[in-house]
Parts: sequence; structure tokens; C-alpha cells
Amino acid sequence: MAIRKAKHTIQEFALIRTIARRFARRVSRLVRGIGDDAAVIAASRPIWWHFTTDLLAEGVHFDLSVASAESVGYRAAMANLSDIAAMGAVPRYLLTSLAIPKSFPSARIFDLYEGLMRACRIHDVRLIGGDTSASKAGLFLSITLIGTTSASRALFRNGAHVGDHIYVTGTLGDSFAGLQLLTRGKTSRSTRRNRHQLGRSHRQFLVNRHLRPMARIAEGQWLNNARLATAAIDLSDGLSGDLQHICEESRVGAELDLGKIPISTACRAYAERNGLQPVQMALTGGEDYELLFTAPSRKQATIERQARARGYRVTCIGTIRPHRFGIQMTSSDGTMRPMPVTSYEHFR
Amino acid sequence: MAIRKAKHTIQEFALIRTIARRFARRVSRLVRGIGDDAAVIAASRPIWWHFTTDLLAEGVHFDLSVASAESVGYRAAMANLSDIAAMGAVPRYLLTSLAIPKSFPSARIFDLYEGLMRACRIHDVRLIGGDTSASKAGLFLSITLIGTTSASRALFRNGAHVGDHIYVTGTLGDSFAGLQLLTRGKTSRSTRRNRHQLGRSHRQFLVNRHLRPMARIAEGQWLNNARLATAAIDLSDGLSGDLQHICEESRVGAELDLGKIPISTACRAYAERNGLQPVQMALTGGEDYELLFTAPSRKQATIERQARARGYRVTCIGTIRPHRFGIQMTSSDGTMRPMPVTSYEHFR
Repeated sequence: MAIRKAKHTIQEFALIRTIARRFARRVSRLVRGIGDDAAVIAASRPIWWHFTTDLLAEGVHFDLSVASAESVGYRAAMANLSDIAAMGAVPRYLLTSLAIPKSFPSARIFDLYEGLMRACRIHDVRLIGGDTSASKAGLFLSITLIGTTSASRALFRNGAHVGDHIYVTGTLGDSFAGLQLLTRGKTSRSTRRNRHQLGRSHRQFLVNRHLRPMARIAEGQWLNNARLATAAIDLSDGLSGDLQHICEESRVGAELDLGKIPISTACRAYAERNGLQPVQMALTGGEDYELLFTAPSRKQATIERQARARGYRVTCIGTIRPHRFGIQMTSSDGTMRPMPVTSYEHFR
Repeated sequence: MAIRKAKHTIQEFALIRTIARRFARRVSRLVRGIGDDAAVIAASRPIWWHFTTDLLAEGVHFDLSVASAESVGYRAAMANLSDIAAMGAVPRYLLTSLAIPKSFPSARIFDLYEGLMRACRIHDVRLIGGDTSASKAGLFLSITLIGTTSASRALFRNGAHVGDHIYVTGTLGDSFAGLQLLTRGKTSRSTRRNRHQLGRSHRQFLVNRHLRPMARIAEGQWLNNARLATAAIDLSDGLSGDLQHICEESRVGAELDLGKIPISTACRAYAERNGLQPVQMALTGGEDYELLFTAPSRKQATIERQARARGYRVTCIGTIRPHRFGIQMTSSDGTMRPMPVTSYEHFR
């Protein structure tokens, strides 16, 4: 399903960095431009506005033969909400543009908006603008999401320090398993048998995690407002790729304890029945839309206590190391090996 | 060249209105959502933020066999700057997303950004974010532009009153003529002869007006800050379509004096040599990115005096009438007829 290859992704990041260097300059009001989950602008006094944008292409980011238009809309909005969550911001407003093939039924466009708005309603986000045009080939969807934080108060990718602990919310790999269940069910008889071996509640849980992800908005605001996290990112590319982003931006290394990565019972059951490593699914699966964050080790007890009190699942999965350490993974048998640099992306 | 048909455009507006009614609610901070050139949010105190977004598709909005990637980028940014101009706002920040076919040379992507930034530099606009992804078919470009005005101070489409005069900046129809020169030069021998009959400076002027339009940012801010205009819109669809938007939003009619529509000498010469009506080119040609605005009749002398002093070309072309009057056009011979309801769009 990896039709957007890792190679392409790396070129893309290089392109963005080139553009950032070439065109982005320091501006007084601009708190954060290219290179984070959202662009941030400090308004006159007590507010920072956060802007994030995504362009989704049919056949690249979503496949309308697998997912409904409603689900595509929902997941597109949720992906952007997740970026806002990773800033510790309150999502506020949405602008959305569509390029629509002439043959596309308008009922499905409406379904797509329904999905967008379903995601937005959960977080009280309002649609404030957009554009609609024709497309000669495939549906394209562009989303800009605007959020706010108090002035001078946001979570960035570049704040991780050596010695900080590394945490994730929720469980990882579920969305990838859910996608596999949805797509393999269409293509292969043998895997359809496997699918039936998986209990119905497990299957529903995993498919739901893929089709109905939930951006960790409340968790992001908590980490930001309580000044607990030093850096944060949302898990859209997979733990491997997103941890790399934190390490690059913070100029640090990391040691990941593979045995501590939180895997759901359903994901573990799916992996077992399909000869997969659940940890591998967490590292490269992507689209879990959980938060990956770092925090000083002295705050561990506070984080765990407050998370419990609020009903958030938060797991410590490693430690920030010096830059020269690189990113290493420790297995349950105590062996250590470098984290592979690839992450791959699939339909979303 | 009208590959996006009028029919499609009308469906599109109906769709936007449906969506607006369905999803947009009144929000305290939201000054203007769907249905104007930009969405406006009042920040904590002295500032309103303006957001406008466009999604441009290869083969629909631009044709890379006619226009360079640099020119596509420039014109895409300028189209959004023009929306900000029509609000009377100061353009500030740009977010841009691209979906790129795998075969697309990265040098051309760079050219496209060069074009975007060339337009932005003219108005001191900073690139603050975006997204890059793969496309299976064609290049797609999404732009979000953010501008500001003082709080409670902006130009909308719905402020025109009966008796107001109707004005435009600059000259109309040039961009359409320029596009014709660019595209016909590629396809037809007979029109190539016609093209050669047109003086070189005329040809250069028209082609430049198409490839290098200039959003009327200064004029928009002047009209807004000096409290001269009651309503404004930028001319992207053609005078006919955009005047209709003003009339619909303001619930008024209009009387247009066709003889007063400002036509450049070059456009007039082009029209003569090609058997076209220059007024028709102004009404339906589109992409002039001039401003169309209304103002109380008592302000006419002030507007003309201040425009002269600032070096802005401003022409009074008609009068706002009651809604039941409809939109009528008066010819130089004194006859009056209803304005046709179509406007068409072409490559941009």
C-alpha cells in the first residue's frame, strides 16, 4: 500500500527545507514558520494563532474504493486537528478547498463535508471559508486549520533535551492493522480467512481506529498548559519517522525501549495471525494520530499521576540521548540497534 | 479556452451556498465566513485577520504548455493577493501546498515557488507554511493567504446602496487579450498573422497584463482606510460575474454604462484586428484583478481627486439601482438591455 515511497518523502522534506531556507526569514510577529506542525503568529496581545495546511490527493492519500467520502473528509480534518493537538493549541477554524472531477456525484461531496464537519464538531471547530473548482483527474482536498494558544505558550518539535523521557499517548499500530483489514478483505481469499480468525470486537476496534482516529486535542492542551512537555509531534508518519523529526529539530539522539511501546490487544492479535511484528507496525505504520512528546525526567511522576486522573493513556517509551548517539532501539533481550531511517506512508 | 464552463461555475456557487447554510453558524469572533473574498477573524483587540484560499488544478486553472511554472506561481499568489486587496486588507502571510506528479522536474517546482515569492515580495508577504505531496495526475496548488485590517474596518460585498456609484480600477479585458495572444500563437497560422499586425508594444502590454497581473493592494487599503467605498470585489471572473456577486450580496440592482468601461488602447487595437467587442472582453474575460467597488455619489469628487493625487486609475462606470431593476447595460446609443448572467473562466 506504500504508494508514496519513502524516497519521495525524503525528497519532499529536502524540498521543504530548501524552500524554508530560501524564502523564510525572521519576522517579528511570526513565532514559527516552516518546520513545525503549524505556523504560529502572535496576535497583538494575549493570543497566538496557529495555521496548518494539508493537500490530499485521490489515489495517493485516500482511495475511494476502500473508504467512503465521509470517512475521507473525517480523516482529513482529523489529520489537521492532530497537527493542532501537537502544538498544544485549541483548534478554532477550518478553510477547505476541493478540486472535483466533473463526473463526481455531488452527494459524495456532501458526504465528504459531512465527514469534515463531524470531525470538527467534536472539537467545536467552525468552517470559515474555502474554494471549489473542477479537476481533470481525481479528487483533491486542501485543508487549512487555524488554532490558538496563549501568547508564548506552545509545544514545538525543537525543545527536547538530553535526559528527557520520551512518551506516547494511546496505542500504536492500530490504524495500520485497520487499513490492512479493510484493503486485504477486498483482495485476498487467504487473508479473508485470517480476518475471520480475528475476533469481531478486535476487528471492529482496529477498523475504527483507522476510519475514526481521534486527534489528542485535550492531551496536547494539558501538556502545554501544565508546562509538562519540552517537545511534541503527532504520529502521522509512524513512530520511527516522527521521532526522527523531533531528534533532527532538537539536535538530539534517542534511545527507544521497544518492549515499552504500547500495543493494543487487538493489534497484537492481528499481528500474530498475520506473521507481523507489532513493534514494526508501530514504528512504520503511521496515521495513529497519537502524540509523541518529551518531558524532563523529574516530571515523570506528575505526568503519570495527572494522566491517570484525567483518563489519558500515556506511556514512557525511551530517553533522549546526545546527538552523536543517534537513534537506537533496545529490544527486550537487551540488544541495541540503530533505528532504520525509513518511514512509509500509505492511503489515508 | 473556457474549459471550466459557466454551468459548472453556477453549480459550484450553489454548492458553496448550500454548504455555507448547512455548516456555517454565527460565531462571536468570526466577522465574515463563506460568501466573501476572505474569511475574517477579529483578534483580541486592534486587529482583524483575513484568510483566503484557492485550489488550482493543472489543465483547469493553468496550462503548463502555455505558461511557465514561474508564471503559474506568480499568478496564483496574485489571485489571492487580489482577494485580500478587495477586503481593503494588508496581505501578511502565505501558506502553500503542492501535489506534484512523480515525473515533474523539481527545477520547475522551484520555478513555481520563485513565481509565488516574486508576487509576495512585491507586497512584503511571508511564506509561513504548507504541505507537499505526490499527485497521480497533474499538478495541484493550494494557497492560503492571510491579511489584516484594523478591527471593524474592511470592505465587503454586501455594502452597496441604491444610488451608489460603481467604479473600477485600471483597464479591463487586457488579460483576456493577452491570453488569446499566448494561446492562439501556438495553434493558428491566420491568427499568428493577426498577432503580427498588432504593434509590438501593444502585444507586450497585453501579454504582460496576463502573465504579470498586479493586485490592487494599495487601492484597496486606500478605499478602506479613507472610508470611501461601501462594497468591493476583485475582478477575477469578469465584470459581469463579479458585479452580479456585489448585487446579490447587497440585494440591489445596477445600471452599467458600457461606454464608460475603461479599455486600454492595446486591448482596443487587439479587438479591432480580431473582430471582437472590447466591452464583451471586459464583461466576461476575467482575471484582470482590478477592483470593482461602489461608493456614495457624494464622494465622487473626493474619490477622483484622491485617486489622481495617488496615481490610481479609477473610472465610474455606473450606478446601483433597486433590486427589482436587475442589472441593465446602457449602450452608447442609449439603448438598455439586461446583462447576460453568464461569466466564463479559462486557464489562469
